[in-house]
Amino acid sequence: MSFAAPVLVNGQPTSVVSAQDRGLQYGDGLFETMRCEQGRVRWFDRHLARLGRGCERLGIAAPAGELLRAEAESLAATLPRALVKVIVTRGAATARGYRPNGDEQPTRIVSIHPWPPASPAEFRAGLSTVALGVNPLLAGLKHLNRLEQVLAQRAAARAGLHEVLMRCGGDNVVCGSMSNVFVWRGAELLTPPLGDCGVEGVMRSLVMTVAARCGLSIRVAPLSVPQLAEAPAMFVTNVRLGIQPVHWYEGRGLEVDERGARLQELIDGTP
Amino acid sequence: MSFAAPVLVNGQPTSVVSAQDRGLQYGDGLFETMRCEQGRVRWFDRHLARLGRGCERLGIAAPAGELLRAEAESLAATLPRALVKVIVTRGAATARGYRPNGDEQPTRIVSIHPWPPASPAEFRAGLSTVALGVNPLLAGLKHLNRLEQVLAQRAAARAGLHEVLMRCGGDNVVCGSMSNVFVWRGAELLTPPLGDCGVEGVMRSLVMTVAARCGLSIRVAPLSVPQLAEAPAMFVTNVRLGIQPVHWYEGRGLEVDERGARLQELIDGTP
Repeated sequence: MSFAAPVLVNGQPTSVVSAQDRGLQYGDGLFETMRCEQGRVRWFDRHLARLGRGCERLGIAAPAGELLRAEAESLAATLPRALVKVIVTRGAATARGYRPNGDEQPTRIVSIHPWPPASPAEFRAGLSTVALGVNPLLAGLKHLNRLEQVLAQRAAARAGLHEVLMRCGGDNVVCGSMSNVFVWRGAELLTPPLGDCGVEGVMRSLVMTVAARCGLSIRVAPLSVPQLAEAPAMFVTNVRLGIQPVHWYEGRGLEVDERGARLQELIDGTP
Repeated sequence: MSFAAPVLVNGQPTSVVSAQDRGLQYGDGLFETMRCEQGRVRWFDRHLARLGRGCERLGIAAPAGELLRAEAESLAATLPRALVKVIVTRGAATARGYRPNGDEQPTRIVSIHPWPPASPAEFRAGLSTVALGVNPLLAGLKHLNRLEQVLAQRAAARAGLHEVLMRCGGDNVVCGSMSNVFVWRGAELLTPPLGDCGVEGVMRSLVMTVAARCGLSIRVAPLSVPQLAEAPAMFVTNVRLGIQPVHWYEGRGLEVDERGARLQELIDGTP
């Protein structure tokens, strides 16, 4: 199977990176998956801000925003809609071992991917048997250590599920393997806190920004497995799916709350 | 700074891998760091067994042992002593996203590195502020998700420490950032269990194999931070350091138990 995604590495068209890159050796880096429409990156400032927080936390020099935007948009220029993935690593190793040498030059990898097929009419989710490890120092970041998500998605595929929700250090669900999760509660939307694990999704932040304009308040609070089992309606979010209603959770059909569509409209209009 | 390690990728001399490799994208793979002496890999079967367990757990086809050994030894042929690092990833992505497509072809990266300088006369360790996330599905494996270790070593460097010991999900210490840990207790050696996190080190397994021949029994039991603070003597292990006595832990000078040297002799003689 071929999968030839056009790639820029530090601005140069190429399909390869150094075998000594610390991104490969240790997952020592971060990534962003951005939506491009008509050649423009949507919500770029939010992606850049999260990438910047990650770089700060890992001690990697962040790429210049305008450079990154220009590279992404050069790849997306001719496409009505696409996904651009950005990876920033600490760079090729300049010494052996986990300890950064301090003189590494960050690697910036920008690749473009066709817009995926539309979501299935019935979006099915379940509870993952793969739990997320607690690590407050890495929580929220979109870093390159994603084996938990890979294992969760591997099991999800076997179970015929589109997404699986993941626990973290106990009986609370924190997020999906590739999404954040929101549960409807009257005029309130509940979503779990991300202080211990999980990714602070750009679409999650957009939901939070527009919620009040729909007369909704957001409550960030722990969401237990039993609470989730009783939730009448929920949705998951990422920049690809937007607000994706979950139609089926752990064998149970769910309602679709129509306010989700209004939230989505407001987000689509948010620069 | 240059760091030109000779590399074989799937048997071919090259310095690069695909930018779409899932090892880079997600840390979706495993590694081994092996000691070579006079062109031969030491304790190869133990490395191969651990790599095989990891591949099994992640659902990656393991490389053939004899092929791997031949590649490692071809790079090490002319060197009295060297380290060979093997990385095995799920391969270049054949689809976007965490979910493996099932048709990926594993990537096998074998690189050689000069034998590092001898350990310092005073080996200083401390307690890391970076904790390990609990994940039984990944525990024991030497996988490519190593950001916790990178952060721990980064902080260790700032503190002037050679190694830091790491907690996992509470007040128990599980291992060092690049080593396993053993504490002396009369005729007993205590080392923590690795069911929740940590790497099952090859040198750790060798200590366990030879201990009885030194009249020592091994107790695998939780090791709390206060226990460690009172331990009169301890050592850390990996295939590079062997049995490395800790001379200084959290500002306190430690004894060096002479039985460590006898253990090391027995390990050196173990095929």
